[in-house]
Amino acid sequence: MSANSVIKVGLLGAGTVGSEVARLIESDQSDLAARSGAAIEVVTIGVRDKGKDRPGVSRDLLTEDLDSVVTHPDVEIVIEVMGGIEPARSLIVKALNGKKSVVTANKALLAKHGAEIFAAAKANGVDLYYEAAVAGAIPIVRPLRESIVGDRVKRVMGIVNGTTNYILTKMDEENASYDSVLKEAQRLGYAESDPTADVEGHDAAAKIAILASLAFHTSVGIDDVFASGISHLTSRDIEIARAIDHVIKLLAIAEVTNKGAVSVRVHPTLIPRSHPLAAVRNAFNAVFVEAKSAGELMFYGRGAGGAPTASAVLGDLVAISRHISFGGLGGRESDYADLPIASIEEVATRYLIRLDVADRPGVLATVAQTFAKHAVSIQTVRQSGRGEDAELVIMTHSALDKDLASTVSELQSLDMVKRVESVLRVEGVDPSDSSSNSARK
Amino acid sequence: MSANSVIKVGLLGAGTVGSEVARLIESDQSDLAARSGAAIEVVTIGVRDKGKDRPGVSRDLLTEDLDSVVTHPDVEIVIEVMGGIEPARSLIVKALNGKKSVVTANKALLAKHGAEIFAAAKANGVDLYYEAAVAGAIPIVRPLRESIVGDRVKRVMGIVNGTTNYILTKMDEENASYDSVLKEAQRLGYAESDPTADVEGHDAAAKIAILASLAFHTSVGIDDVFASGISHLTSRDIEIARAIDHVIKLLAIAEVTNKGAVSVRVHPTLIPRSHPLAAVRNAFNAVFVEAKSAGELMFYGRGAGGAPTASAVLGDLVAISRHISFGGLGGRESDYADLPIASIEEVATRYLIRLDVADRPGVLATVAQTFAKHAVSIQTVRQSGRGEDAELVIMTHSALDKDLASTVSELQSLDMVKRVESVLRVEGVDPSDSSSNSARK
Repeated sequence: MSANSVIKVGLLGAGTVGSEVARLIESDQSDLAARSGAAIEVVTIGVRDKGKDRPGVSRDLLTEDLDSVVTHPDVEIVIEVMGGIEPARSLIVKALNGKKSVVTANKALLAKHGAEIFAAAKANGVDLYYEAAVAGAIPIVRPLRESIVGDRVKRVMGIVNGTTNYILTKMDEENASYDSVLKEAQRLGYAESDPTADVEGHDAAAKIAILASLAFHTSVGIDDVFASGISHLTSRDIEIARAIDHVIKLLAIAEVTNKGAVSVRVHPTLIPRSHPLAAVRNAFNAVFVEAKSAGELMFYGRGAGGAPTASAVLGDLVAISRHISFGGLGGRESDYADLPIASIEEVATRYLIRLDVADRPGVLATVAQTFAKHAVSIQTVRQSGRGEDAELVIMTHSALDKDLASTVSELQSLDMVKRVESVLRVEGVDPSDSSSNSARK
Repeated sequence: MSANSVIKVGLLGAGTVGSEVARLIESDQSDLAARSGAAIEVVTIGVRDKGKDRPGVSRDLLTEDLDSVVTHPDVEIVIEVMGGIEPARSLIVKALNGKKSVVTANKALLAKHGAEIFAAAKANGVDLYYEAAVAGAIPIVRPLRESIVGDRVKRVMGIVNGTTNYILTKMDEENASYDSVLKEAQRLGYAESDPTADVEGHDAAAKIAILASLAFHTSVGIDDVFASGISHLTSRDIEIARAIDHVIKLLAIAEVTNKGAVSVRVHPTLIPRSHPLAAVRNAFNAVFVEAKSAGELMFYGRGAGGAPTASAVLGDLVAISRHISFGGLGGRESDYADLPIASIEEVATRYLIRLDVADRPGVLATVAQTFAKHAVSIQTVRQSGRGEDAELVIMTHSALDKDLASTVSELQSLDMVKRVESVLRVEGVDPSDSSSNSARK
């Protein structure tokens, strides 16, 4: 053990996560000390409003002078769980410049200003840890940064937003409409009164930007991510997916294209029911990783909530405390690979397209011709009459986004096509079917 | 970067895993250098027989003088992938005593001599990493040692042997008998010609001993593990499990009992089909972790094979190389908690018991009385006639192993009980059903 027999911590934010962190540091102190090599003590907590009730958090530690937390002379580690871009960004940079290590759970900030913050940590020779920023309690940042760092990651594909996964699970299992499930989710506190950040995929986009940066050793920001949400999904979409033994999930995907660029996107996606991600229900999160040597890996658990997020923060806190006690620093982000970012137009996936067409001879031929003209190859077609109209459900082979877009645009101009009801991407085969031969034990 | 612009590595063993490690260090050198802060070079490879054909491995590096690998003056990191207890143990200890860091994939060795080896690493101030020793490519050692180190692990429950999971998957999905699937598995190379270590649970026992030590900060060796295998399972057992929506898996379980002792065991176990572990098919592995704050976590992937195991070895190699380049040491095992080990007699689980009984009035009453007498409470009974006999399938509530054992022993002495056909443990509820309220995103 070093001379530091007590490591002093400053906390920014005392909401659900911050309060839980403060309580756990207090209640688990002997275990944390045994694992860290030093006692850990919270000495100051910066909040916006001292007056609020925070059970289990000592009022004496609270201050509304946030700056004083990051400039506190005794503080060696700052934990930022206040969220938002400013003043979080300035405070973290100031802490790092003051040679304090930082733990943050702030995905939006890292996805926007990650490069600046990583550089400040490196320049000052201190640690910056953020396991809690992505998928709550699930260890995914450290495995990507340290465990499979000797391998080549090909793809990261995750369910990283619990609100939307809860909504999609209910729509699938209870045949409920998007609107009714969203209302129910808001009533239960699973969704915000303004659900935009979740349902439009912005939250997932920030998280996958962070994972993509780690996986591909390339700086990826939120503006590099294509995001499309779930608010337009209908019960019929879910029903069609079920009929072909698939389920719809909001997936965040980062991969290296065959041209060596990084593609990062968030969109509702059909995956086979036998795929490990299909079994991830309700508010649970999971991240699926494909690497050259390791093959398929999946990390599953709780993506949010006070206690799970606090667990991730405390793991980081112990790691940094060990470095202070015994020397050393954690692994650094690197962007040495510096791959180009692929635009969504150049990304190839399979698609499921649902059309409302006139029920008369020759329609299918014309529709098929339109796909062929734009180099989109059809895998299966399912036609079902319903009075004067028919529904065409078309699954394509892998096609470029831009080719699919021009196909859809031309379909919309055809008289016999009354409506393009939906266009959804399709991913994934069950890995335990396709390639079990390479793993024996 | 430090003065070490090249880090020299000695390799012990050049079988499937060792050859793959040597090839990858060669083929991925620029990526490994960028991630490690130094070039990594294999300078010597110790093998038992230099004459063997090893594609992609330079003959010039081979030596049959294993000692020379661990005493080589330029070698800073020794990678041990030869397996077995001796000479692996002596060689690793000699390397550590010579201030070389060690990466090992040797689960049997760590489960038997872990305490001695960890102590040698600590005494010499060098790193000892062994991600590849448990569940191949799946990052589980580092998450337990570093990610959830700020939390309290309550339970670790894993499918950590691919051979038995392959056999059980085929028995379940193809209604095949144990013997026929084992023969098929041997033919395909999934099972050894002597399958004892896998099918009797010894391999899983070594792995769960390692995970238990990490999870509970307590030294757990293979002799502390209760192990029972799958060779006595019948198609009827699988069928009964299916009828009650369960599946049988060989689970390795480590948990803290309500008396504060550590229970570590391996046995075939019924789990609900909705449990995340139930979906782990064929040769895949998965480890399920329950922690106080984090809740349920699962880690899934390939548990064996040359490339997946090599991926884990290279991740450890990069971590140690970073320490050599930039300073610092990895997290250490700790046994500060030093919890007592619970004997299997004191472990409580639910049970499924299948009896062949005489089909006459009063049998059920007598059987029920026998359970009650030994304080084992029955949850459900299913009786089905088959000629002169009847089959009784009894699910109990949670009961102590010793109470169940005395119940079974008395049942066997009853005239009307022709045979106790099977006794199987039952675990698990689907976490995404029971407690989704605590995690939102």
